[in-house]
Amino acid sequence: MIFPVLYYDMAMGTIIYAGTFDPITNGHLDLIHRAVVLFSRVIVAVAKNDDKNPLFTQAERIEFITKSINNLPQVEVEGFDGLLVDYFKKRGGQAVLRGLRAVSDFEYEFQLALMNRKMNEKFETIFMMPTETYTFLSSRMIKEIARLGGNVSPFVPSHVEQALRKKLFL
Amino acid sequence: MIFPVLYYDMAMGTIIYAGTFDPITNGHLDLIHRAVVLFSRVIVAVAKNDDKNPLFTQAERIEFITKSINNLPQVEVEGFDGLLVDYFKKRGGQAVLRGLRAVSDFEYEFQLALMNRKMNEKFETIFMMPTETYTFLSSRMIKEIARLGGNVSPFVPSHVEQALRKKLFL
Amino acid sequence: MIFPVLYYDMAMGTIIYAGTFDPITNGHLDLIHRAVVLFSRVIVAVAKNDDKNPLFTQAERIEFITKSINNLPQVEVEGFDGLLVDYFKKRGGQAVLRGLRAVSDFEYEFQLALMNRKMNEKFETIFMMPTETYTFLSSRMIKEIARLGGNVSPFVPSHVEQALRKKLFL
Amino acid sequence: MIFPVLYYDMAMGTIIYAGTFDPITNGHLDLIHRAVVLFSRVIVAVAKNDDKNPLFTQAERIEFITKSINNLPQVEVEGFDGLLVDYFKKRGGQAVLRGLRAVSDFEYEFQLALMNRKMNEKFETIFMMPTETYTFLSSRMIKEIARLGGNVSPFVPSHVEQALRKKLFL
Amino acid sequence: MIFPVLYYDMAMGTIIYAGTFDPITNGHLDLIHRAVVLFSRVIVAVAKNDDKNPLFTQAERIEFITKSINNLPQVEVEGFDGLLVDYFKKRGGQAVLRGLRAVSDFEYEFQLALMNRKMNEKFETIFMMPTETYTFLSSRMIKEIARLGGNVSPFVPSHVEQALRKKLFL
Amino acid sequence: MIFPVLYYDMAMGTIIYAGTFDPITNGHLDLIHRAVVLFSRVIVAVAKNDDKNPLFTQAERIEFITKSINNLPQVEVEGFDGLLVDYFKKRGGQAVLRGLRAVSDFEYEFQLALMNRKMNEKFETIFMMPTETYTFLSSRMIKEIARLGGNVSPFVPSHVEQALRKKLFL
Repeated sequence: MIFPVLYYDMAMGTIIYAGTFDPITNGHLDLIHRAVVLFSRVIVAVAKNDDKNPLFTQAERIEFITKSINNLPQVEVEGFDGLLVDYFKKRGGQAVLRGLRAVSDFEYEFQLALMNRKMNEKFETIFMMPTETYTFLSSRMIKEIARLGGNVSPFVPSHVEQALRKKLFL
Repeated sequence: MIFPVLYYDMAMGTIIYAGTFDPITNGHLDLIHRAVVLFSRVIVAVAKNDDKNPLFTQAERIEFITKSINNLPQVEVEGFDGLLVDYFKKRGGQAVLRGLRAVSDFEYEFQLALMNRKMNEKFETIFMMPTETYTFLSSRMIKEIARLGGNVSPFVPSHVEQALRKKLFL
Repeated sequence: MIFPVLYYDMAMGTIIYAGTFDPITNGHLDLIHRAVVLFSRVIVAVAKNDDKNPLFTQAERIEFITKSINNLPQVEVEGFDGLLVDYFKKRGGQAVLRGLRAVSDFEYEFQLALMNRKMNEKFETIFMMPTETYTFLSSRMIKEIARLGGNVSPFVPSHVEQALRKKLFL
Repeated sequence: MIFPVLYYDMAMGTIIYAGTFDPITNGHLDLIHRAVVLFSRVIVAVAKNDDKNPLFTQAERIEFITKSINNLPQVEVEGFDGLLVDYFKKRGGQAVLRGLRAVSDFEYEFQLALMNRKMNEKFETIFMMPTETYTFLSSRMIKEIARLGGNVSPFVPSHVEQALRKKLFL
Repeated sequence: MIFPVLYYDMAMGTIIYAGTFDPITNGHLDLIHRAVVLFSRVIVAVAKNDDKNPLFTQAERIEFITKSINNLPQVEVEGFDGLLVDYFKKRGGQAVLRGLRAVSDFEYEFQLALMNRKMNEKFETIFMMPTETYTFLSSRMIKEIARLGGNVSPFVPSHVEQALRKKLFL
Repeated sequence: MIFPVLYYDMAMGTIIYAGTFDPITNGHLDLIHRAVVLFSRVIVAVAKNDDKNPLFTQAERIEFITKSINNLPQVEVEGFDGLLVDYFKKRGGQAVLRGLRAVSDFEYEFQLALMNRKMNEKFETIFMMPTETYTFLSSRMIKEIARLGGNVSPFVPSHVEQALRKKLFL
């Protein structure tokens, strides 16, 4: 009943890591570094999300990520507008990657994944966990700390820290 | 900043789907069918777990799964004893697959994943969700229903239903 | 110690199903259909909630529900403004019905129910669950999908879908 | 679109409040008193549950409840063995009542309700909340306190307190 | 291995109870009364939080608290702007006190506490629970009830009730 | 409205850190080290809990802790039997300390704290969080890993590791 396993070293396929990334944090980057070990290609898909009033433009958010992962050739950064399911279909990805940190995350992600699956049966979501030292990180909290003049250097790449400072006139 | 994506159709690598499977349910099988779309090989690793007093022996549990997935050549069923991290290392898998159903699941799985990662840095856990019609299924509940004389045919393969009936002298 | 039960077929009383319903979803309708089996009269009470900036006016939201349940004579649709406890008292309902989907729902509903009970001791909340295929549905997500040009026909009645399309100039 | 509501004072139908009640607590009794306001008949259905090693026999548990609700003619206490769905069908109840206290409760109850609905489409579960001063009560904790010699009189009827003392040789 | 305990009656040190308090509720006051039993000094630190659009100014919020605790000499009320970690450092407090009510609270507080600890290793958070009759209270819900013309007198001190009425032109 | 704060450097009072500690983990020790910064005396109260079939005797568990904290003169280790509220009263502590790790923890601790408060109004519970690298640790998981032959040295003091090995004949 047990078959030989031949292709252990074969890298996995393509995964789409989607989000707003406003801005990218060390927690997101930790997840990307975990994903490239498992998948042959990781597409970081940056949602436009203008209705959420992001602090940074889509172009800025894409640039922050690109700068942060320039040593990872198997990672691609791309913006998208509209529904993730439509982008997923167009890109031909095999699954979408989402990070899980806490229970509230989990519930929202669960709802989102089921809704997306309803709109596209082939839409599969894969969840991974960042290292436990990043379970408390969120882009929202980082922006709040930066607004209040706090030091966000332990939480984001240095070029993101500088951009936050500049954007918030600090 | 965007690179061409060449290998979209390339199947992903090897994933270990570990559990007690006492017995396998339609929810577990749903997850296996989702996994074979994404991974080139799925190893269903059946923990011995004698200290948890399983209803079925490890050999029986392996047999139930093997019978249930005989149309899936890329799935391998195997028993293991001891720690999952040790089995993971021996087998050379790239990640472990776990199913997520509810918040209580999530918390336990989160703890387990972090603890395993502490024992082996390369231990990566990937979570997937069964279809929403199976979010309520658990092996424990199925055994309880069978014990009380209930009909478990909507929840398990027919050969598992018969084995439950026989084991419980129904 | 066991008494004869005489009135099994006697329908239950009046329940108030309150919410914003911006707009009504198939999940809400599933709950209404479940409620009419148990209660002789179901009042769907549509909160004005202008401070929440609903997409549809109260009149539109009432109309959507009325059109959706025109085959259910025991269901009544009505708008209200102000506190639910005051409306509850004025209408003389016996209990308020709320749908439960997820943990975050549960917590909010729990708080709301306790607070309402504090303001009116007779205020009783009854929770029911939609079918599991609707556990992921929320009016908020449906509006987001529609805004992004997605197909919401699996989630809402067709006249609501058309109204969404018209309202959002799609 | 609004129809006249004629039967507001009409009491609701029959509800089955099922559980192990090992033993009945003031929290359970609070729920029963809430239920009799809304339903014309409340059947307290005491599961045998021998495999859970209850402290009290089913007969004792039924007696405790009967003594506690002797001023409520619309409440009936009855034991049952086997599956709740089968009992539900035999008794012809319209819905099952369950108490909700905390998140862990909620999850388990959610699973149970969905599983029961899968076995019998007409199986409907209605959830109600005890008063907030009883949200912390559980039969398990009461037995633990009694075992350690604690005073459980604020949590259970006095005849239950005496029975606990006697059963545990205190 | 057991040492004599000499200083049982020695009061504990200084704790900072931080929040927006927009406005103070009976739940917050319950926690303050619990804290003064344990700590020799309680600093109620009122965050400016202008970006959250508080209903009351920081000065008003400070005044409400000061009026409510005028019989407690060991309580000090103070406004602060900027990051709590910076205020914490400047004030030399030993720990920050936060109230815990529900799971959603817990998660947010957990994240906040870990993030603050990351910015200042000495930042320690201590959680306490209000009495269970206040577990449902939140400043947000109280404002919503007041806006809808509801009676908030069971939830806030009378001078806060009057201020709400005046502020909302009721 | 602001009073001078004179006694910032005054250490806090006595706290009772209660549990089964079967066996003590690095997570427990992390919490003790955090507590001694805030409290002038920390009593580690080891529950007998014979009905929970602990792996180690109460005397062994006390010894493990005593060995682990021999450099902390302000920490006292003591066994107790019976209810924590009774021990609390006898010892004259000001509050009980409990560690919080995850949502399931939180719920159980919340119930326990409210129940204890019901039995003794003066019973106050204070929650603290271990460092995030220990949020996944539990005595139960450590025993399971040790039973399966895993290396528990990153999770417990070395003398506990040796005792586990000896107890489990590894």
